[in-house]
Amino acid sequence: MFDNLSKIKLKLNEQHLDALLITSVPNITYLTGYSHFSKEEREAFVILTKNQQYIVTDARYSEAVKKHVPRFILLEVSPQNRFEQIGRDLVKTYSLKRIGFEEQNITVAEHKKLSKLHDPNHFTTCIPISNLVESIRIIKEPKEIQKIEQSCNLGDKAFEYILKKITLGISELELAFELEFFIKKHGANLSFPSIVAFGPNASIPHHQISEQELNNNEFVLLDFGVLLDDYCSDMTRTVFFGKATDEQKKMYNTVLESQKRAFNLLNTKYLIPNTKTKTIKAKNIDKAARDYIISQGYPSIPHSLGHGIGIEVHESPRLSPISKDELKPGMVFSLEPGIYVPNFGGVRIEDLIVIEPSGPRYLTHASKHLIEI
Amino acid sequence: MFDNLSKIKLKLNEQHLDALLITSVPNITYLTGYSHFSKEEREAFVILTKNQQYIVTDARYSEAVKKHVPRFILLEVSPQNRFEQIGRDLVKTYSLKRIGFEEQNITVAEHKKLSKLHDPNHFTTCIPISNLVESIRIIKEPKEIQKIEQSCNLGDKAFEYILKKITLGISELELAFELEFFIKKHGANLSFPSIVAFGPNASIPHHQISEQELNNNEFVLLDFGVLLDDYCSDMTRTVFFGKATDEQKKMYNTVLESQKRAFNLLNTKYLIPNTKTKTIKAKNIDKAARDYIISQGYPSIPHSLGHGIGIEVHESPRLSPISKDELKPGMVFSLEPGIYVPNFGGVRIEDLIVIEPSGPRYLTHASKHLIEI
Repeated sequence: MFDNLSKIKLKLNEQHLDALLITSVPNITYLTGYSHFSKEEREAFVILTKNQQYIVTDARYSEAVKKHVPRFILLEVSPQNRFEQIGRDLVKTYSLKRIGFEEQNITVAEHKKLSKLHDPNHFTTCIPISNLVESIRIIKEPKEIQKIEQSCNLGDKAFEYILKKITLGISELELAFELEFFIKKHGANLSFPSIVAFGPNASIPHHQISEQELNNNEFVLLDFGVLLDDYCSDMTRTVFFGKATDEQKKMYNTVLESQKRAFNLLNTKYLIPNTKTKTIKAKNIDKAARDYIISQGYPSIPHSLGHGIGIEVHESPRLSPISKDELKPGMVFSLEPGIYVPNFGGVRIEDLIVIEPSGPRYLTHASKHLIEI
Repeated sequence: MFDNLSKIKLKLNEQHLDALLITSVPNITYLTGYSHFSKEEREAFVILTKNQQYIVTDARYSEAVKKHVPRFILLEVSPQNRFEQIGRDLVKTYSLKRIGFEEQNITVAEHKKLSKLHDPNHFTTCIPISNLVESIRIIKEPKEIQKIEQSCNLGDKAFEYILKKITLGISELELAFELEFFIKKHGANLSFPSIVAFGPNASIPHHQISEQELNNNEFVLLDFGVLLDDYCSDMTRTVFFGKATDEQKKMYNTVLESQKRAFNLLNTKYLIPNTKTKTIKAKNIDKAARDYIISQGYPSIPHSLGHGIGIEVHESPRLSPISKDELKPGMVFSLEPGIYVPNFGGVRIEDLIVIEPSGPRYLTHASKHLIEI
């Protein structure tokens, strides 16, 4: 990930920052390649100056950081050498005047402490910065896309495995457990708690997994992701346990067609020769899928069409009616249209897409024909 | 959990607040009993006024919240009715002047948005509040202690189970997987990613679990916790695979004795009749354990002696040399002394303790005699 540092340092220059304090754990993972810090507690900080990069952590992590993050200078915090002191020392050493901090990550209480770094002798001020590292992260390097694809591949295999476990009377919890078991046996983790929803439960987009047992002639919605080598996948498949009625088939095929329309609109952009900028508004892709579902007499999708993914399972860009994001080569995101009919059932189909210079490409490959078990 | 609301409303009065905005997910769980909101994304808010309580969330959670949190008024956010609008409406309805927010949870970016609630017509201001709900959560209700004890009981059973799985050549990852499998098969979750460390790896207090295989004559350190019914347990046991040398036995027994000394110091407080206040400084308990380890010629514990536990695996109080906390009846916390000798091995023994009106009591019961396998 080290190459990305130079891109961030360019941004520091653009924003006239002498240094940037990075506290977001996904951003620290992105920059250092080290992913074992807790998101719940402040265990590490990264400080970038124009010519140097520091990682600040405590004795519990020193050995690991020295080994895995050799290109960062380790500064060890301890009761004798607190973060505030380390900060003040750096301010002096480099005569730092403008220090950026991540305003979406630093709390109001932490900001109070940070304000103490203001040093009148050095005219130091701390400046709230928004989405600086994220604006680099949104465009994935080939290595990152490869990692996401590996996670997707294991997800595809997990889906194939779980199909064999779908039997009459199995509970949502049991099925989710089988899924988790398979993924962990393959050396990976879940990227989020799986959603497994049977029958009417599938009509709740974020159904809380339950003891519900599978009955005949029900939809089975499976939404899950793999976390492998620090990168996430995310996929949803809906299969039918029994023989689907024409109404159920229509519902399924409408969702499938709506996803295709979103993909095709993206693809079209790349099929037209000599298009100057290979970008497209995210909200237009959302609209293509959404409008088709409405045109078939179904309620609009009660969530956005998709989200970026990478180190985090939800990151930029967002594909929604109010999104201002533009989709560009190097972006990886989900397309996940759905139809939900209360007390009847629901269908969602979710795949990950990467935009390559030549056009969009699916990263998930599990079958999308309506599977009847 | 509803009874705790009245305690919090008393605090609102004390601090002259007309309302309190609660955004910390563990605090929302504590107040509502509903624990399915993501900690990574803002999915819900709680707003307490003097006489009413609101829960603000989106359509994905509405049905569940209506069902599980009936004593809170549900306000649904949507693109048409954003949080800012809901906030402004409440400010008008109740003529709210002083609104507290959780300064340890609200980010600088969110604070900017919150500032827009300032309404000159109502002289509204947002006031940073620190640890208000946490100051109630630190003293556990009997029902909460019961839940923690249930998690501890399952942890004890998991330890008994895992002892049978400790065999030559098994890897740390495999053993951790067995532990997780057992806990999940019993309907619970891990309260944090388990630490399993063999031999020299046990000398790293926060060892990152690896493919390391078990050799003969090594320490096996197991630090894990159960999350059941929203409450966490946390325990560490160190066993020996093979026949421990006198040196290894001394190391083990020193840690065990150090924990006993901490417990006994707590206990003494309750044995002395007519002691007016049944409180004791957390740092003195830490000192009792730490001093004993040093007195035996070992390095000081490179972490604190213990931490509070409940809805979160780490919460107040803290038992460390710099802690200002006082230990009181109703508190639940860990006692986890350890000795770590680089390239040799490490021993940590961790139990949970509750302070009851009659004195401290262990919540974990797994054997602490040095087990040789």
